[in-house]
Amino acid sequence: MRFELTVLGSNSALPAYGRFPTAQVLAVRERCYLIDCGEGAQMRMSEFGIRQGRIGQVFISHLHGDHIFGLIGWLASLALCSREEPLDIFAPAGLEEIIRVQLKYTGGLPFPLAFHTIGPGRHALIFEDSAVSVYSLPLAHRIPASGFLFRERERPRNIRPECIETFHIPYQAIPEIKAGADYRMEDGRVIPNAELTLAPPPPRAYAYCSDTAYYEALIPLVRGVDLLYHESTFCDELAAHAAETGHSTARQAATIALKAGVGRLILGHYSSRYKNLEPFLEEARSVFAATELGLDGARFEVAPEHRSGVGEAS
Amino acid sequence: MRFELTVLGSNSALPAYGRFPTAQVLAVRERCYLIDCGEGAQMRMSEFGIRQGRIGQVFISHLHGDHIFGLIGWLASLALCSREEPLDIFAPAGLEEIIRVQLKYTGGLPFPLAFHTIGPGRHALIFEDSAVSVYSLPLAHRIPASGFLFRERERPRNIRPECIETFHIPYQAIPEIKAGADYRMEDGRVIPNAELTLAPPPPRAYAYCSDTAYYEALIPLVRGVDLLYHESTFCDELAAHAAETGHSTARQAATIALKAGVGRLILGHYSSRYKNLEPFLEEARSVFAATELGLDGARFEVAPEHRSGVGEAS
Repeated sequence: MRFELTVLGSNSALPAYGRFPTAQVLAVRERCYLIDCGEGAQMRMSEFGIRQGRIGQVFISHLHGDHIFGLIGWLASLALCSREEPLDIFAPAGLEEIIRVQLKYTGGLPFPLAFHTIGPGRHALIFEDSAVSVYSLPLAHRIPASGFLFRERERPRNIRPECIETFHIPYQAIPEIKAGADYRMEDGRVIPNAELTLAPPPPRAYAYCSDTAYYEALIPLVRGVDLLYHESTFCDELAAHAAETGHSTARQAATIALKAGVGRLILGHYSSRYKNLEPFLEEARSVFAATELGLDGARFEVAPEHRSGVGEAS
Repeated sequence: MRFELTVLGSNSALPAYGRFPTAQVLAVRERCYLIDCGEGAQMRMSEFGIRQGRIGQVFISHLHGDHIFGLIGWLASLALCSREEPLDIFAPAGLEEIIRVQLKYTGGLPFPLAFHTIGPGRHALIFEDSAVSVYSLPLAHRIPASGFLFRERERPRNIRPECIETFHIPYQAIPEIKAGADYRMEDGRVIPNAELTLAPPPPRAYAYCSDTAYYEALIPLVRGVDLLYHESTFCDELAAHAAETGHSTARQAATIALKAGVGRLILGHYSSRYKNLEPFLEEARSVFAATELGLDGARFEVAPEHRSGVGEAS
């Protein structure tokens, strides 16, 4: 029952100091989701042992190069590995043209590729499978940009192990009970489900907010998530420059985390003008203690029995 | 008077084992030339200390993704670094459309970008500046592909230091003498140039042959070059597969090197099925001893006073 984020690239536009541009993989149970795909993402996936065949959906926040230039290379590599499973790409309008033109010259794909356009500035359910519901999040950037909220689907109830023996419950009856059914014994007695099972742990949630200026409209949308990734391109001394370019400072990221009451904050999208990232961590922790640096290769897991309720996507 | 090749990426299509796809930089005197630009080339340039501002020309062999997918990211990074100097790209038809579509969405460039189409299957002079003449080389691949021959321009003659004193040659007269002029002394006596100067060392040359099947038509075109890079995607046991896919084996690369009488052979474009590359080296050296593995970060210099005459591009 895994819920784990892997940062593939943590820098902003100019790769620097071994930090690649933005890309992440979220693994939920047996599925993986690729979030943005900056140049070199495929090399990082190999390096960090990501099971690429499990990725069925890609979520692209916006069409700046440091979030998309790795996509065509990754698709070409999937083709070389003879992938057959379909792939969905959720992205702003325009990405399909970028990808199709390149495929026209460099070769087609042996698997179906479907593009789904994300309308700008909206908070809406854009995808759902058995593991997650994914919502777009409006962001405040220079061009249309969406963040993403991944909300785990409700897990089945857990059967109390001692009940199996007490009530002689056969193996075949267990899935129905876990799904919420009462159990009728051979003598006709009915044991209510509430007596047989425990509620599952609350669903887990991850919110990805990049690229964006400080934007308080995000707060209710990411409230209580277990993990919040919020871009922090600059430190506080460049707050004016951050605002001009549609980016945030570490302090601003931490302020959103604090006001939204999230579990943990992960920083990232650092400007290449910073070699040492300790100032980001210090600045953010002075506002919100549970902050960590997102760095290439960093993993952030949310345990099945996690601390808090999930952020409600209103 | 530098003449040095740096390998940025040495693998074939699928990056593997820390080997990135194909890209190289050739530095000749104060200028640099980028040869192919697979994904991650810009990260490698930073890592290996390439002075990117010195690159004025890019030479693209063919439109397979592992030779071009790093180009758009590098261009975007040059833009972020406020480059103003023009850039020339020599490439097969189609690359301009690929790049222009991406720039349309991700942002323009602050410097002029000129595309020059390389006709397929030709051996012709395609570029010349004060440091090099560059010739296209026909290759035998699945799609139109060109190699490149970089031939250093003739360097000026060297003045014999002792002559300056003997004939009281003033400082201002030296450039003309180095360019080949005789020297007329104050008493009217004429000292012939041959007495005053030494011939410059012969020009140096580098030939880049990738991607290609074994192709003997290359031999006269790369004869006697100081450095030959010849792709070796496979070892000999996969010679049939190499031929089918338009690639070469290490033995075939070495055979071209031997028959062309080159100075040194550099291997590369290894298939991701090989983790250990020692068999490539052994196989090639059994045919042509002066072989080296091209690996990400490897540098190959040709000294100013090098061993042999330059390959004549007939």
